[in-house]
Amino acid sequence: MSTKYAALNPTPRVLMGPGPSNVPPAVYRAMGLPLVGHLDPQFIALMEEVKQMLRDVMLTKNAMTFPVSGTGSAGMEFCCVNLIEPGDEALICINGVFGTRMTDVAQRCGALVTNVKAPWGRIIEPDDVAATLKTMKAPKLVGIVHAETSTGAWQPMEEISRIVHEHGALLLMDCVTSLGGCPVRVDDWQVDAAYSGTQKCLSCPPGLAPVTLGPRALEKATKRKTKVASWYFDVNLLASYWGQDRVYHHTAPVTMNYALREALRLVLEEGLENRWARHERNHRALKAGLEAIGITIASQEGHQLWPLNSATIPAGADDAAVRKALLQRYSLEIGGGLGELKGKTWRIGLMGESSREENVMLFLSGLGAVLNELGCKTGTAAALAAAREVYSR
Amino acid sequence: MSTKYAALNPTPRVLMGPGPSNVPPAVYRAMGLPLVGHLDPQFIALMEEVKQMLRDVMLTKNAMTFPVSGTGSAGMEFCCVNLIEPGDEALICINGVFGTRMTDVAQRCGALVTNVKAPWGRIIEPDDVAATLKTMKAPKLVGIVHAETSTGAWQPMEEISRIVHEHGALLLMDCVTSLGGCPVRVDDWQVDAAYSGTQKCLSCPPGLAPVTLGPRALEKATKRKTKVASWYFDVNLLASYWGQDRVYHHTAPVTMNYALREALRLVLEEGLENRWARHERNHRALKAGLEAIGITIASQEGHQLWPLNSATIPAGADDAAVRKALLQRYSLEIGGGLGELKGKTWRIGLMGESSREENVMLFLSGLGAVLNELGCKTGTAAALAAAREVYSR
Repeated sequence: MSTKYAALNPTPRVLMGPGPSNVPPAVYRAMGLPLVGHLDPQFIALMEEVKQMLRDVMLTKNAMTFPVSGTGSAGMEFCCVNLIEPGDEALICINGVFGTRMTDVAQRCGALVTNVKAPWGRIIEPDDVAATLKTMKAPKLVGIVHAETSTGAWQPMEEISRIVHEHGALLLMDCVTSLGGCPVRVDDWQVDAAYSGTQKCLSCPPGLAPVTLGPRALEKATKRKTKVASWYFDVNLLASYWGQDRVYHHTAPVTMNYALREALRLVLEEGLENRWARHERNHRALKAGLEAIGITIASQEGHQLWPLNSATIPAGADDAAVRKALLQRYSLEIGGGLGELKGKTWRIGLMGESSREENVMLFLSGLGAVLNELGCKTGTAAALAAAREVYSR
Repeated sequence: MSTKYAALNPTPRVLMGPGPSNVPPAVYRAMGLPLVGHLDPQFIALMEEVKQMLRDVMLTKNAMTFPVSGTGSAGMEFCCVNLIEPGDEALICINGVFGTRMTDVAQRCGALVTNVKAPWGRIIEPDDVAATLKTMKAPKLVGIVHAETSTGAWQPMEEISRIVHEHGALLLMDCVTSLGGCPVRVDDWQVDAAYSGTQKCLSCPPGLAPVTLGPRALEKATKRKTKVASWYFDVNLLASYWGQDRVYHHTAPVTMNYALREALRLVLEEGLENRWARHERNHRALKAGLEAIGITIASQEGHQLWPLNSATIPAGADDAAVRKALLQRYSLEIGGGLGELKGKTWRIGLMGESSREENVMLFLSGLGAVLNELGCKTGTAAALAAAREVYSR
């Protein structure tokens, strides 16, 4: 049987899709370090470091800040199963795939969900949240996506947070695509619960979901009348493992935690402000380059994410053919549109390690060449010049 | 902040606890391979390989065989949330921690659970299962642990499987600690659903839970009247991603899947029969060595697992002090007892890569030395000779 399966030898990719992003060499090295047990004093020391580093990156003092042992969507599920009891009224905002998903998850937890919607690509308006909350009896939770990975919309949080708390509800924020790539201020914004993923702007492979629960959220989770429906995600059990008791719950993904620690160390070494500025700069260059060849960013002007650029596919361009050519000839991955935007947008990620000047230039060169070959006239030189102009400022 | 966190540099361990086990160099190398996207054609090809390799290792033809994106306990939760509807009668067998846990998980899924119990360390008697099933109205599922990691008991499956199916129930098997270390025959035993972990006898870091669902289990999951309470673990959604549709569900832990593929490749290269024989041989040597110094295996004679040896702590020996000395001086990890067996047993794992002659000899040497120093007279030389005698056969 030894000959049946060849040695694994994947062709390297430039990862400019909606995640995962490229992984820095130091993070690969961390995964090669010797595995230790999940209750080894060395791992317990690492757990404390990871918790503190996550607090530093999420800008929170919440004690209950740690990586859930699953991917980003596991973070969403962790928050919902712990914070929602059957029959609770919840308001979930939908302006893309992930608000839709959160609605599904919340309903499975027994929530009576009311939605506030905005067109895909646009942000949720605070007035709509306020008006809808007024129609609800006792809203317990408001869920909203900070960075909608399916559309590239960047949701302002502060005004909505104020409104949510006026109504006595908890604020749950999805920051899967924003954490590490643009400001995420959990404490300043008084976010009660937030979850993220490792494989976007933290540039760690997928496999963990950083989460944080503030005091009000924790009170809800610990004082609920019904048992949490999920054993795997029950914070009351997880707190004994990730807290000071170190009671065995499940076997933490040790190697993924090595990777996350190193990825977070690199984020803090670069500095949050510097890292955000880098993401902004590369976004601006990409946007300038695209606009120079007539391709617009599909999300709402003034609310366009730096890490995830939703580009309107130009008339006459074959969505799949362009992505396939970029992958085959440049080994460069971008994402297609999701849901309502399928076939209408490309999703170009500039996240973490992938947010680099050379990636912007390679992508614009490659896109120009591919579009030309497929019969769409583009001015590749103009695109490159426009991007270069941003970098020369 | 760059100086706040030192470079990660864990001291290597000889992992002889209840898992994780040591990871082979080739698996570390696999994790260093360039990350690709979770919808990349290269990853999709790998998914198909991993599914087939898992079938080969689990000895099943079940199409729905794949790794759940979480650790072993996530596999337990995956099976329960999909196979149990609120109000379903379930019989869960308890002879250790993991049957207790399965009861908790099943109850959170809304099951009306009846337990069949056996003393910790002993196996579940088929007659008890038969007698209890007769008292139930319409038992839908019987859950049982094949290899009880907390006690080292090795459960025979065939007779119980026959009884379960006579009553029209589904058979759910926990093979977290047995898969890859002793025979696990999903199809021969007519197991309807089984879950495992990667970090035991497969010698891959923790982070994935191989699962398999047979036709009857799949029918239950797809035709259930109520929505699965978990979005993350809903097989109806996961089937679209791991099946031929490739519909995005969550972002699979790509690097962990690289690791699992390589770990499975090594298992198949060694050959299941050879691998089982290696586990048996090292177990026998360890047992002979321990018995030579008066330490018995705590689990039921004739039903003692090869990968996990539950050793009775000798009178006068300080449980924690011995484990601490082994860790500090030999960098060798063994596990303490869990639950009822806390302070009464040590759990000595000989799993996958850790199941090696040199580890058996190192452990017996180290244990002898540590016990002597702590005032327990042991005959280390006799232990080593007894083990060596097994290897010389």
